[in-house]
Amino acid sequence: MTRGRFITLEGGEGVGKTTQLRALADALGARGIDVVTTREPGGSEGAEAIRRLLLEGGEDRWSAPAEALLFAAARTDHVDKLVRPAVLAGKWVISDRFIDSSLAYQGGAGDLGIEAVRAINAFGIEEWFPDRTLLLLHPEGAERARARDGDAADRIGGRPASYHQGVEQAFRDIAAAEPDRVRLIDASGTPADVTARLLAALDDLL
Amino acid sequence: MTRGRFITLEGGEGVGKTTQLRALADALGARGIDVVTTREPGGSEGAEAIRRLLLEGGEDRWSAPAEALLFAAARTDHVDKLVRPAVLAGKWVISDRFIDSSLAYQGGAGDLGIEAVRAINAFGIEEWFPDRTLLLLHPEGAERARARDGDAADRIGGRPASYHQGVEQAFRDIAAAEPDRVRLIDASGTPADVTARLLAALDDLL
Repeated sequence: MTRGRFITLEGGEGVGKTTQLRALADALGARGIDVVTTREPGGSEGAEAIRRLLLEGGEDRWSAPAEALLFAAARTDHVDKLVRPAVLAGKWVISDRFIDSSLAYQGGAGDLGIEAVRAINAFGIEEWFPDRTLLLLHPEGAERARARDGDAADRIGGRPASYHQGVEQAFRDIAAAEPDRVRLIDASGTPADVTARLLAALDDLL
Repeated sequence: MTRGRFITLEGGEGVGKTTQLRALADALGARGIDVVTTREPGGSEGAEAIRRLLLEGGEDRWSAPAEALLFAAARTDHVDKLVRPAVLAGKWVISDRFIDSSLAYQGGAGDLGIEAVRAINAFGIEEWFPDRTLLLLHPEGAERARARDGDAADRIGGRPASYHQGVEQAFRDIAAAEPDRVRLIDASGTPADVTARLLAALDDLL
């Protein structure tokens, strides 16, 4: 059995990840690849149970480190129960968000530090980092893109511009540190333009 | 406000921790110390919720790393919501089990490694390691003590002798690495004998 691939889509709010995940899955499926799509937070029964725990109660329910440990535990279960078995069975798994969202939001824009958040996640997922991470970025910057796409009303989307700039900078730092795994994708233009760029960034894996 | 102290009791199954915790709390209370007793797993509302998640489902519900991350998240909440506020308010907190149980059971006797388990816990609890850890050990060894005390029927107690020997060796290794924090306490003799030894091992903190 040939091992499949594990691909993740990352980026800030309103950058079009969900639309592109569907388009990418369709394009890979059309090439005869057996694709499984998933998303975080969640993606497995245990991870969903942890997610419910995270959503219970108010803003002060969990400290930032406790929350990061719970996200790492949920991600570990997601890998154990879905990602690893599917990839070992020859499938391509595409996840809407994965470890880099924790690194950028909690590690970079939060106060926990990218390397510290990476370490607790690596404890859980071990070698199951993505084979390729496609980081969607609007060239005009996160804040303008977010305002334009009009989803600034949810809990994270509603945080101040400085927070979203911190997230974007953290994503760029992660990509610079791991250029082989993480590829920057220009999210401007038509959806079809963006999908073509995603496929081009997977060319060496196909 | 003078800071209180954070004391933990550790040891294998059947070594008398629960009895000694009560006796120690009474002895400290008699000296005018404001004592709060607690225990792991659990100890705070969030930690109890995580504990319920850990107990749901069968043996394969969570992988060993996922379980260790959940224990670390629960311990972080225990520190956030109970230990830190009480100690900062001048109280002495005595916990029946804490980080060293994770280090010995999951890190040492399990396959995860003491240092790796210490790292994920340190991420959460930061500087809130115990001021003193009292490690109760029967001089005749864990396995004989356990057989004698007759609590071999529960899930962990029922594991093979080699497992319990691994736990005891891990406890001894941790104590050797941190001699100022972790003190070995001979758990043989009458309960009053053991309590006297525990108090002697706290003498410099009183």
